[in-house]
Amino acid sequence: MPGNTFGKLFRVTTFGESHGKALGAIVDGFPSGIRIDEEFIQKEMDRRRPGSTKYGTMRNESDKVEILSGVKDGISLGTPIALIIHNENQKSGDYSDISTVFRPGHADYTYFMKYGIRDERGGGRSSGRETSMRVAAGALAKLFLKEKGIEFYSAVRSIKDIVAKGAFRRDAKSPFYFIDDDRDDEIRELIENTKAMKDSIGGTIECHVTGLPRGLGEPCFDKTESIISHAVMSIGAVKGISFGLGFESTRLFGSENNDQMDKSGFLSNNAGGILGGITTGEELYFTVAVKPTPSVSRSQKTIDEKGEERVIEIKGRHDPVILFRVLPVIEAMTAISIMNLYLENFH
Amino acid sequence: MPGNTFGKLFRVTTFGESHGKALGAIVDGFPSGIRIDEEFIQKEMDRRRPGSTKYGTMRNESDKVEILSGVKDGISLGTPIALIIHNENQKSGDYSDISTVFRPGHADYTYFMKYGIRDERGGGRSSGRETSMRVAAGALAKLFLKEKGIEFYSAVRSIKDIVAKGAFRRDAKSPFYFIDDDRDDEIRELIENTKAMKDSIGGTIECHVTGLPRGLGEPCFDKTESIISHAVMSIGAVKGISFGLGFESTRLFGSENNDQMDKSGFLSNNAGGILGGITTGEELYFTVAVKPTPSVSRSQKTIDEKGEERVIEIKGRHDPVILFRVLPVIEAMTAISIMNLYLENFH
Amino acid sequence: MPGNTFGKLFRVTTFGESHGKALGAIVDGFPSGIRIDEEFIQKEMDRRRPGSTKYGTMRNESDKVEILSGVKDGISLGTPIALIIHNENQKSGDYSDISTVFRPGHADYTYFMKYGIRDERGGGRSSGRETSMRVAAGALAKLFLKEKGIEFYSAVRSIKDIVAKGAFRRDAKSPFYFIDDDRDDEIRELIENTKAMKDSIGGTIECHVTGLPRGLGEPCFDKTESIISHAVMSIGAVKGISFGLGFESTRLFGSENNDQMDKSGFLSNNAGGILGGITTGEELYFTVAVKPTPSVSRSQKTIDEKGEERVIEIKGRHDPVILFRVLPVIEAMTAISIMNLYLENFH
Amino acid sequence: MPGNTFGKLFRVTTFGESHGKALGAIVDGFPSGIRIDEEFIQKEMDRRRPGSTKYGTMRNESDKVEILSGVKDGISLGTPIALIIHNENQKSGDYSDISTVFRPGHADYTYFMKYGIRDERGGGRSSGRETSMRVAAGALAKLFLKEKGIEFYSAVRSIKDIVAKGAFRRDAKSPFYFIDDDRDDEIRELIENTKAMKDSIGGTIECHVTGLPRGLGEPCFDKTESIISHAVMSIGAVKGISFGLGFESTRLFGSENNDQMDKSGFLSNNAGGILGGITTGEELYFTVAVKPTPSVSRSQKTIDEKGEERVIEIKGRHDPVILFRVLPVIEAMTAISIMNLYLENFH
Repeated sequence: MPGNTFGKLFRVTTFGESHGKALGAIVDGFPSGIRIDEEFIQKEMDRRRPGSTKYGTMRNESDKVEILSGVKDGISLGTPIALIIHNENQKSGDYSDISTVFRPGHADYTYFMKYGIRDERGGGRSSGRETSMRVAAGALAKLFLKEKGIEFYSAVRSIKDIVAKGAFRRDAKSPFYFIDDDRDDEIRELIENTKAMKDSIGGTIECHVTGLPRGLGEPCFDKTESIISHAVMSIGAVKGISFGLGFESTRLFGSENNDQMDKSGFLSNNAGGILGGITTGEELYFTVAVKPTPSVSRSQKTIDEKGEERVIEIKGRHDPVILFRVLPVIEAMTAISIMNLYLENFH
Repeated sequence: MPGNTFGKLFRVTTFGESHGKALGAIVDGFPSGIRIDEEFIQKEMDRRRPGSTKYGTMRNESDKVEILSGVKDGISLGTPIALIIHNENQKSGDYSDISTVFRPGHADYTYFMKYGIRDERGGGRSSGRETSMRVAAGALAKLFLKEKGIEFYSAVRSIKDIVAKGAFRRDAKSPFYFIDDDRDDEIRELIENTKAMKDSIGGTIECHVTGLPRGLGEPCFDKTESIISHAVMSIGAVKGISFGLGFESTRLFGSENNDQMDKSGFLSNNAGGILGGITTGEELYFTVAVKPTPSVSRSQKTIDEKGEERVIEIKGRHDPVILFRVLPVIEAMTAISIMNLYLENFH
Repeated sequence: MPGNTFGKLFRVTTFGESHGKALGAIVDGFPSGIRIDEEFIQKEMDRRRPGSTKYGTMRNESDKVEILSGVKDGISLGTPIALIIHNENQKSGDYSDISTVFRPGHADYTYFMKYGIRDERGGGRSSGRETSMRVAAGALAKLFLKEKGIEFYSAVRSIKDIVAKGAFRRDAKSPFYFIDDDRDDEIRELIENTKAMKDSIGGTIECHVTGLPRGLGEPCFDKTESIISHAVMSIGAVKGISFGLGFESTRLFGSENNDQMDKSGFLSNNAGGILGGITTGEELYFTVAVKPTPSVSRSQKTIDEKGEERVIEIKGRHDPVILFRVLPVIEAMTAISIMNLYLENFH
Repeated sequence: MPGNTFGKLFRVTTFGESHGKALGAIVDGFPSGIRIDEEFIQKEMDRRRPGSTKYGTMRNESDKVEILSGVKDGISLGTPIALIIHNENQKSGDYSDISTVFRPGHADYTYFMKYGIRDERGGGRSSGRETSMRVAAGALAKLFLKEKGIEFYSAVRSIKDIVAKGAFRRDAKSPFYFIDDDRDDEIRELIENTKAMKDSIGGTIECHVTGLPRGLGEPCFDKTESIISHAVMSIGAVKGISFGLGFESTRLFGSENNDQMDKSGFLSNNAGGILGGITTGEELYFTVAVKPTPSVSRSQKTIDEKGEERVIEIKGRHDPVILFRVLPVIEAMTAISIMNLYLENFH
């Protein structure tokens, strides 16, 4: 089964190589009669752009998204909504030096092994650029779900060894989307040092969904956490996910971990808003591990398409930390997941 | 979309409530001409039974699996293989005291909210007993994959705060399936104490898959880790999953985390055998968080179906730790996942 | 993709070989809280049994269906409903003479070519007996849809060259389910003659669905007629289907064929209740071609598994006309189709 | 389930309204390493254009298809292939007079009932123009299957009452794609008269597939004829389909209809190349009923969006017969179907 479609009742199909003519998505299953706020979609796209973090300089790229179908006079028709961004700049020269070499930590090797051919320009289909269309599709889901009172928030729980101690806040003020607001100097220094070392770092992200109704999620194989895990683990840099207390719950006694209830509702939310795969109506939350970006300029050992040993130093301006750009992608994949679960129950 | 089917080319559909007449699975897509070793299937089933751990006493229950279709003279026909276990003992009296009360940490509350009706006997469909049929279906996948040289191993990395320090071993000798073999007394004591306190504990499990070919997994939404995460996170007690170094990779520099290569192959396997969602041919491994079982005999606050406050003390002999029984279920869901990816590539 | 599941929101998965231990179906997606009338299900099953037609003698077989899960105290739980019939009589001796010979017009040859193995006893999986579970699953769909005012009717439009001239009637009184009620003698004689010649005959069936809401069906690939055609054409003996005037519409001018409207609604229903794949709210109807049953006792040329030429005379009591038994199967597959479309719109 | 995707292993998702910015398709599952002949794709597109029949004048429209992704240096990458045609001319003024009126025989009424909104310009999503992208996707399937020796042929069996008497020929020379080559004058006169009467006509098309291997198709719900019927019945104007002798087989005795065999193979092919849903290796063929196009300029009674009675005379140059343009669409949907079945067996 080709893997470029996600979802059942709300189906997102994407296409496009990093340096091809265009990238796009078809969103099928979006209800009719909904006002489509194109400005909001573009804003979401902008959150994912290189240099779009509060910290760092803006590059001169624009991923201007265009709607090709499914909307008339700003209102959804119920027919597929096609979204597209055209690549302004398709020069492939920048990648000629690595065109036959497999970059460590990238999908170059596996794509070549799987398909016998690959688009080496910017990673082709396996580029992080592919996720831009997920953000566009996720923005549509957010638009719809917002009307139902469902909203998505995320923040950085840790960057390398710097771990936030505070509770999750929807309005974290750090330019690094960090939960604690007094660690910015420490983080800035870490990033500068990493850059100087031509290296990269990762971290963890916490994502929260508020306003969920009770009863979403399908037992037994399509539990809420199964659908979200499927979605979020499909983001290139993500290596782990845990719901509620997650791995920490394994260190508690059952009596500590169980969320007891009284008339007012749940007395705690260690489960992260899900029981038996079905939403409890409490806030849904999970934590995601984002590996350090594999694009580092340091010398690394690798091989090329002919199997010859090579040493590679990846050139170009690479973000030492892509964590901040992954954040809107996680939200988008979560919104697409919830949209599917929502339509199953409240269609 | 009803959620009782997993997989696309190898499709497992299960049915059955804990205390209903029977539980069963239909396995569709199993290739024809394969010898079906029923003894092996039963052995796998036995690994999951209550008291089946090397430690602890055997209960007198038998989950004797029967094959109803798809096999003739011990050879698969290519048609659906139906597997069934009949419930010998359907008395529901044992659960009458909790029949209208929601057990904390269980799916009682959410099932009632979702469906407006629930089978309270033993948790009905949300019972861990449902996973028995996953093990049966997984055994079929294992049978097929073993012929292709693909095998599955798992062991306990941690029980509550006791964390194994050694590297994963396929032949761990601990009666607790623990990776380190000199911690048994410590673990035994922990379990005894937990039992005495009428409480429960959880832990983490590491699962390894060997012999995988390169090129399994479908970009972009159906990456290998997406499919496995979907499958494994659908097991009731599982709260987290991470691949390769997982959450630990977030504390490394990119240059440390990347798996470099030379002519002999990869120089490390921090990625856990997957790049860009596609298998590298290295060992695939991941770690799973299993929460402490919610069935504890201690007093807990809860409400009943009418919303009245209640205090519950769950009676009956409950395992203080279900970790060991989850282990074959994780393997089964992984085998079912890999079977799907395998058939896509080598059908 | 293994083909033993039909439907998306209402999913029917069947298993079982004709002479195996059992045949069964898992029905996933049936809403919770619905009263399950087991008597009705059995009645539907009885319509499909050999000799169950008003004409002909009852054989001594009983397909007693049992519900294994998904229902508690007669009310659906929202979990999968498993239905099973056990084969009382699995003796395979009757088929030994044809065990290596391919019966003309049957799936013996193609199954053997596809799978390299086949269950020759009674046609194994390709037997018409497989359709019994479709009828059971269809009965569940009918139960649900009846509450919504949607009902299914069918009758025989033609038997071999005998074609009914009258309009479809829901209450046709002919023992042959024939639309015209004054042709019974003619039909009886045809059947007797056919039997005497050791031959078989087919015919056409008209199926009508009443009470449908407007708006069912999904453009563009999952139009109402696409879903129903997919379902009905999967019945072994069916060779053609046409909606509304169908093939006859090709002989009309557009102005004759178009259904015009006024305030009172449509002025005709040549389209058969569908426009652009979406139900109009008018009666949905279609016609199905059922080929003469391939089991004839006359001598026929064929080959065996080794490719050797053989002459076969199929023994045993075979119905000279299975048309009447296909009728409830067509209704069942239509009900399953409509159930899927209904849940998409009114879930 | 939104219905804009067809197929499982070879997935075609289309988007676009008739007069929107663009129409497009994403083709997912196309194997890597295949040479993409863009000229062939365009040629197929041209077969479907208005006035593209051998008879009739060419309009000045061009549906120039562009490939946006999935192909590098003329070779497929294994990633999704996006195809697009831009609408040069989006003026909607032509349709202002019918913008609130439901055209008889069209999907205007049902779309409005289903979605509460519709794109009235040219029929929006329900326009025949949507099928252009099916042809583009089908051309990709044909390209791949031709390398495997599988080819598609179709011809007109009947136009209104003019029915061809000869056997199907792959090289019919009639400008009307008619099977018999001595009826052209008759047909030309019929078309001229129909045009003069401001009316329209339909007919039947026969489609043949050669070079198929044995063993395609999945029992029991996804038989070859189920998949093809699903696909072909989703074409707007199609009202019926029958395989092999189809409806005619209902007039034969079983002994006449059965295809007997000897060492050389099948002695006839009444079944149309399928037994039990699985291909026999013989030529697959089926017949399709295409209704007269509903766009006629004669006065017709209808209602508008407010329910008021209206009389409509559809203006503009409308083909009196779209039969010839449906022919490549039928071939395309058949090729897409066969591609799916092929990949399941020979992937």
